[in-house]
Amino acid sequence: MKIVRLRSGRDDITYGGVEEEGIRLYRGTPFVAWEPTESLVTFEEAELLAPVLPTKIVAIGKNYADHAAEMDSVMPDEPLMFLKPATSVIGPHQPIVLPSQSTNVHHEVELAAVVGKVAKNVSAENASDYLLGYTVANDVTARDLQAADGQWTRAKGFDTFCPLGPAIETEFDPGQGWTISCSVNDGLRQEGVLTDLHFGVGELLEHVTAVMTLLPGDVLLTGTPAGVGPIEAGDVVECSIEGIGTLRNPVGKR
Amino acid sequence: MKIVRLRSGRDDITYGGVEEEGIRLYRGTPFVAWEPTESLVTFEEAELLAPVLPTKIVAIGKNYADHAAEMDSVMPDEPLMFLKPATSVIGPHQPIVLPSQSTNVHHEVELAAVVGKVAKNVSAENASDYLLGYTVANDVTARDLQAADGQWTRAKGFDTFCPLGPAIETEFDPGQGWTISCSVNDGLRQEGVLTDLHFGVGELLEHVTAVMTLLPGDVLLTGTPAGVGPIEAGDVVECSIEGIGTLRNPVGKR
Repeated sequence: MKIVRLRSGRDDITYGGVEEEGIRLYRGTPFVAWEPTESLVTFEEAELLAPVLPTKIVAIGKNYADHAAEMDSVMPDEPLMFLKPATSVIGPHQPIVLPSQSTNVHHEVELAAVVGKVAKNVSAENASDYLLGYTVANDVTARDLQAADGQWTRAKGFDTFCPLGPAIETEFDPGQGWTISCSVNDGLRQEGVLTDLHFGVGELLEHVTAVMTLLPGDVLLTGTPAGVGPIEAGDVVECSIEGIGTLRNPVGKR
Repeated sequence: MKIVRLRSGRDDITYGGVEEEGIRLYRGTPFVAWEPTESLVTFEEAELLAPVLPTKIVAIGKNYADHAAEMDSVMPDEPLMFLKPATSVIGPHQPIVLPSQSTNVHHEVELAAVVGKVAKNVSAENASDYLLGYTVANDVTARDLQAADGQWTRAKGFDTFCPLGPAIETEFDPGQGWTISCSVNDGLRQEGVLTDLHFGVGELLEHVTAVMTLLPGDVLLTGTPAGVGPIEAGDVVECSIEGIGTLRNPVGKR
């Protein structure tokens, strides 16, 4: 099932399920209890939002060998975690806003795991029990500030620097050789396969939840493949994962 | 005024205001609208909780010259920001739990500014308009993991690694020469004065909100003075700021 969040009426924000003829509106949320309603809206009338509003976003650095190599870096022995603030989340079609503090902002397409229930000290084998599903993320990064600061919080923490969407696919198995890719203005920039993830989603969830409790809706970003590069005002960035969908965002300037 | 959060009945969590004879219970929250009730509970019957539940905790590294020196580090040209997850927050008297991944967990007493309203692109001069007040924090840090990882998220992100409290003082001016200190088992470990803050609270709020939106209840940690050191299971850590109060936490083991 593909889960979306959408504005369906003037102010009405609900979860929905993607069906062949349109989006079925649901009462409640997929985290507690929800049920389908009689309402179906067309794809044209639905304004998709980020499919989830996380309390936190835990991200993993250097989890594809080809990206570590292009950053002149080596692969870590353990997953390297960092945080992006929840205020960085935007949905499909919302603009990524380039901040005045940076002259070198990069796209980074990533597989995002969405946590379905409270997760602490989860083992890799049981990880899938704690996940609602997967979506696509763009871990937008001010590359110049990342190098200057050492800590990555500012470089990756600007408002609008975490596009998520378009949908959460609940039946997705990242162990299959799905393609992950990013295009800017129709030119292919990044392309990899999810089987190249150095630490798999189960290992990552085990590592992260041995440190901190993840809450329903929290998002785990799993790293980006090679090919990262700059985006400019006026660009359109498309992040895609086969089997989930394409997350499309224009780029604007502050 | 000193604002606390407390459990007053069996399951009743409310905000309160400290008065001479006890804690006045309030309806609502200090962020939207609140009003005093007729109920006053004694200090003995009140179980104090963290005085606020932030959506995020933005912290600043190396903001006292003496601490930067003891870490063999230099002062940064700009504030160096990092994030602690909201799940790391505990209240007064709740135990700091030492994780099995570290053998060197340190106390770090810090002045914590509590955001009162949505803050984006705030100027240093207007910063106080956006603050509800100040409380005391302990930015507990696994020093070995901080060095090993480079990124500080794991070292500072464990559950229980952000004690906050005991109260939010709304009439506090950090520009005064208040003493900030930390004792372990009655032995003084850290002592400084808030006028030694390298970047003041206004500058920090300007710097952080030029990057990310802060929401009501979000917490800004302002750095720690010299004297950080290890805590062990069985210790009691007391973090104090003159004019605000003392935050006391026992240390336990996972």
